[in-house]
Amino acid sequence: MAEVSKLEGIFAPIAIPFENQELSIPRLKENLDRWNRSRLRGLVVLGSNGEFPLLDRAEKRSVLECVRENASPDKVLIAGTGDESTRETIRLCKEAAEIGYDACLVVNPSYYKGSMTDAALKAFYDEVADHSPIPVLAYNVPRNTGINMSSQLMIRISEHPNVIGVKDSSGNIVQISEILAEAKPGFRVFAGSGSFLLPSLCMGAVGATAAVANVFPDECDEIVNAFKKGDLHTARQLQLAILDVNAAVTTRWGVAGLKAAMDIEGYFGGLPRRPILPLTEAQVVELKGVVKQFKLRVQQIRGA
Amino acid sequence: MAEVSKLEGIFAPIAIPFENQELSIPRLKENLDRWNRSRLRGLVVLGSNGEFPLLDRAEKRSVLECVRENASPDKVLIAGTGDESTRETIRLCKEAAEIGYDACLVVNPSYYKGSMTDAALKAFYDEVADHSPIPVLAYNVPRNTGINMSSQLMIRISEHPNVIGVKDSSGNIVQISEILAEAKPGFRVFAGSGSFLLPSLCMGAVGATAAVANVFPDECDEIVNAFKKGDLHTARQLQLAILDVNAAVTTRWGVAGLKAAMDIEGYFGGLPRRPILPLTEAQVVELKGVVKQFKLRVQQIRGA
Amino acid sequence: MAEVSKLEGIFAPIAIPFENQELSIPRLKENLDRWNRSRLRGLVVLGSNGEFPLLDRAEKRSVLECVRENASPDKVLIAGTGDESTRETIRLCKEAAEIGYDACLVVNPSYYKGSMTDAALKAFYDEVADHSPIPVLAYNVPRNTGINMSSQLMIRISEHPNVIGVKDSSGNIVQISEILAEAKPGFRVFAGSGSFLLPSLCMGAVGATAAVANVFPDECDEIVNAFKKGDLHTARQLQLAILDVNAAVTTRWGVAGLKAAMDIEGYFGGLPRRPILPLTEAQVVELKGVVKQFKLRVQQIRGA
Amino acid sequence: MAEVSKLEGIFAPIAIPFENQELSIPRLKENLDRWNRSRLRGLVVLGSNGEFPLLDRAEKRSVLECVRENASPDKVLIAGTGDESTRETIRLCKEAAEIGYDACLVVNPSYYKGSMTDAALKAFYDEVADHSPIPVLAYNVPRNTGINMSSQLMIRISEHPNVIGVKDSSGNIVQISEILAEAKPGFRVFAGSGSFLLPSLCMGAVGATAAVANVFPDECDEIVNAFKKGDLHTARQLQLAILDVNAAVTTRWGVAGLKAAMDIEGYFGGLPRRPILPLTEAQVVELKGVVKQFKLRVQQIRGA
Repeated sequence: MAEVSKLEGIFAPIAIPFENQELSIPRLKENLDRWNRSRLRGLVVLGSNGEFPLLDRAEKRSVLECVRENASPDKVLIAGTGDESTRETIRLCKEAAEIGYDACLVVNPSYYKGSMTDAALKAFYDEVADHSPIPVLAYNVPRNTGINMSSQLMIRISEHPNVIGVKDSSGNIVQISEILAEAKPGFRVFAGSGSFLLPSLCMGAVGATAAVANVFPDECDEIVNAFKKGDLHTARQLQLAILDVNAAVTTRWGVAGLKAAMDIEGYFGGLPRRPILPLTEAQVVELKGVVKQFKLRVQQIRGA
Repeated sequence: MAEVSKLEGIFAPIAIPFENQELSIPRLKENLDRWNRSRLRGLVVLGSNGEFPLLDRAEKRSVLECVRENASPDKVLIAGTGDESTRETIRLCKEAAEIGYDACLVVNPSYYKGSMTDAALKAFYDEVADHSPIPVLAYNVPRNTGINMSSQLMIRISEHPNVIGVKDSSGNIVQISEILAEAKPGFRVFAGSGSFLLPSLCMGAVGATAAVANVFPDECDEIVNAFKKGDLHTARQLQLAILDVNAAVTTRWGVAGLKAAMDIEGYFGGLPRRPILPLTEAQVVELKGVVKQFKLRVQQIRGA
Repeated sequence: MAEVSKLEGIFAPIAIPFENQELSIPRLKENLDRWNRSRLRGLVVLGSNGEFPLLDRAEKRSVLECVRENASPDKVLIAGTGDESTRETIRLCKEAAEIGYDACLVVNPSYYKGSMTDAALKAFYDEVADHSPIPVLAYNVPRNTGINMSSQLMIRISEHPNVIGVKDSSGNIVQISEILAEAKPGFRVFAGSGSFLLPSLCMGAVGATAAVANVFPDECDEIVNAFKKGDLHTARQLQLAILDVNAAVTTRWGVAGLKAAMDIEGYFGGLPRRPILPLTEAQVVELKGVVKQFKLRVQQIRGA
Repeated sequence: MAEVSKLEGIFAPIAIPFENQELSIPRLKENLDRWNRSRLRGLVVLGSNGEFPLLDRAEKRSVLECVRENASPDKVLIAGTGDESTRETIRLCKEAAEIGYDACLVVNPSYYKGSMTDAALKAFYDEVADHSPIPVLAYNVPRNTGINMSSQLMIRISEHPNVIGVKDSSGNIVQISEILAEAKPGFRVFAGSGSFLLPSLCMGAVGATAAVANVFPDECDEIVNAFKKGDLHTARQLQLAILDVNAAVTTRWGVAGLKAAMDIEGYFGGLPRRPILPLTEAQVVELKGVVKQFKLRVQQIRGA
């Protein structure tokens, strides 16, 4: 199990490669080779950017095993194990633990929105945390689930000793601040996107698990480093610079944009699994411009 | 395959019984015995009220087979086959066809909300309808998916020859009207809840697949019958009377409310699978009052 | 004061003409001449389509007086008197009464959304109804106010003896049905748009106050008449036919679309007051097509 | 006119006192005496917390004049001049300029939500800025208006030379960051609430206009000062400490909460104008606890 102290810094919620719509383990290994040499603190496997809802059980296991076997030993590994049903979520937590993951990231069930009251979600996380052999990070991603877990709810969820943190992708900095103000000491908050990494750090977050870290892991880490060194100016410059490319691989074009950016930057991106459509050619051209601009801007900031 | 002419009237999206959180085929058969003797036109198996996202592949197959074997031959059988991934959706459509279902009900993928553009959803339904051996009904349920498929999109989806209708649970009567005004001739629109059955019939819908039909199938059918006979007064009285109990088993208390109402009315309801919580005792008492009031009101209307 | 019995059928929430952004009383009189000869049951003056938030006190009074003086005596006159403050709302109710209006239409305050709890809105309507010399119709228009008054709230509001009805523009037919099921006997529900007139009538509404009735008053009245005569087929054909032009003058292009349609049909429409922008030329061309299609379709239905 | 250089730091959007629902100029003067002695950089008069939509023209003028005459000369004065109509907005800007205000804060029109396209809002701000004798700050407050002005729109609005900044109350730190990244150099961004002041400063905002600054102006200023001195730790402690009381006077209890907190702290708060309801006694007790906790916490932080 990872020492909790290692759960900080930049994590990439890694994209999963498909070829002809089939899972490609060789391509995944190629990407891992490169992430291994990056400044990433760790990897989140089977997160939203890993297209987890589009994989079946056997595929999920293959992916979890492949990453465990091929990731550099210094990387912290977090498995995405959330599912609509409590029992399947627990099964996945146990599987991840058995394969050797350090922690698991558990998105809240969301199909039965009307039934997912605070009481139901608190009970869900309690039951999962009771049975998970590895520490649990809650995962709040309203853009996908259509549910926002409020700071009040998250503070209650944090009371379980096996719930050690949260990835909050809401982008609501007040909510993140409220969690940091009131959750148990040591509760680890990760920004769920690269677009609000610095403001989150300013309020006490420990890092981010951000789609853009698939493509620009070191640039994300530079924001953390500059912040830690007290160089708020550089941190801010980098944070402002990354907004546009971050949006391109998240809110604007989603997983399809992320994979196209990976292709541009020499990773294997490929096509998302259907029903997600790939970018159009025109969008790829536009994305190339965004990426180019970002790299230019980073050079300028580094040079300054 | 069902003749399309049979796809009308009242369908129950049947609840699936669990005992100690395990699927109970015997209890399902008990309920089927009773639904077989009702005026239901057919059953929707593995719909939202069937807790389909909480069942694994093997359980889904067991349920589909059990219903096919035990449903009265005059009932039209529709299988819920929607999944986040296109490939799994198609696999389920083929499985349902092989088991002997008449049609399938396909909810739209919804986790990647930002990627589920009209183009992506149109492509999804086209691909599914291309490969499904049985006719496809689209299923729009924004309360669960967080996505509303607009009338303009649904009209485009309806253009595929193997898409024969839609269950619209939005409750948006203008949207339903627009679909009826512009979708291809013969496109069958079902109200997705008992709360707007009569207004939908007035605009040209062919029926409803409604949670409340699990518990009060004949009362739902009476609304259709009164409407067909031109007795709008009785139809309206029944429609107004059913609103409260319909809300109790849908928007207010969801599947947990539905199952509690089934218990009250002599079906086997039992507990929903977790993370859905059962009603509290106080809620059950309140529900009993709602059910009692409804039955009293129906008696009065029938007596008038 | 109007006998309550007259509060039914089709009302036009009349558009207010501007020339060079200045209120034009002569143009208003021209339009009144024509509405006087229509089958409209009455007029709503200073409703949303009357751009009431863009008029100052003196202009509001001029408009109220002009319509009172020039409307045919058989038309029921309703004044829009809602304002953010309770005191100004009451002042306007008294002014309208003094000028000779039959009833007033009171939209809920909405700027302080967080403070507009059910308790605050119930107290608001109670205080207004206590002081208004003429009967009050509540007005629920979430598309403009960003607040939906639920059926439960509306049922409570209806308990005041001087609140005699509601214009519900939400388009939520279940909500409308619930109000009809539980509000006090005789509480008059008006559909707030032409797009859900027939479904509302089916459930027990007494009519509509609909933007499209500015341009096609008689066609709206034909839906009511066909329904009343039991000719549901014709009512439905007309209802389906009017959807597109109704959307053009409401959800799609708003007041600007309404005024452009009035110009097309020989009323004086003119430009809305800024900040509302007029339609572009391309939009006007498109609107002309929509209007033409509608008129053609009506001819076919009448001829059948 | 204020030198633009003074437009930074903490502004209080001042509450307006009523006695027996009537505007009380004497009470306003009492409060001004105290704000004059605070570390506030300036006052926003007739903002949302000033209940501007509940005041008539004459009252607005009285308030503007009273503050101009009684505010300490070193305070920057900003007038809230937004209205639904462009013409009334411009009239108010001119009036404020004539009375001697330094800048105006212009909320976007919002009743005709469907018509308030980006094009309409850009045209609105252009026209207002063309005619306003004093610099314009745009005001984005989706919680009240139901409209969010996106960063892309705000960047376009910022292009007008007379639009010098924005108060963004959305709390969306990514949006605020995007504006800071791309709006014209020198465009001044103010956090619109005390709850995200520090994250906004971290990204480049110049200050805040925050309801809580009515009651705790110096504590707000301490956050800015600590941040400017590079003492991020203290700034963060204060920011985390203020969250709860900030929520109490904004999202939780609105203007009623703000006025109650003012009463607790020795300002004249009084009741809001109806339809806004005052706090219940139980709420006041709870608020007292929140205030007490905050003050205790600040003492601890100052002592550390």
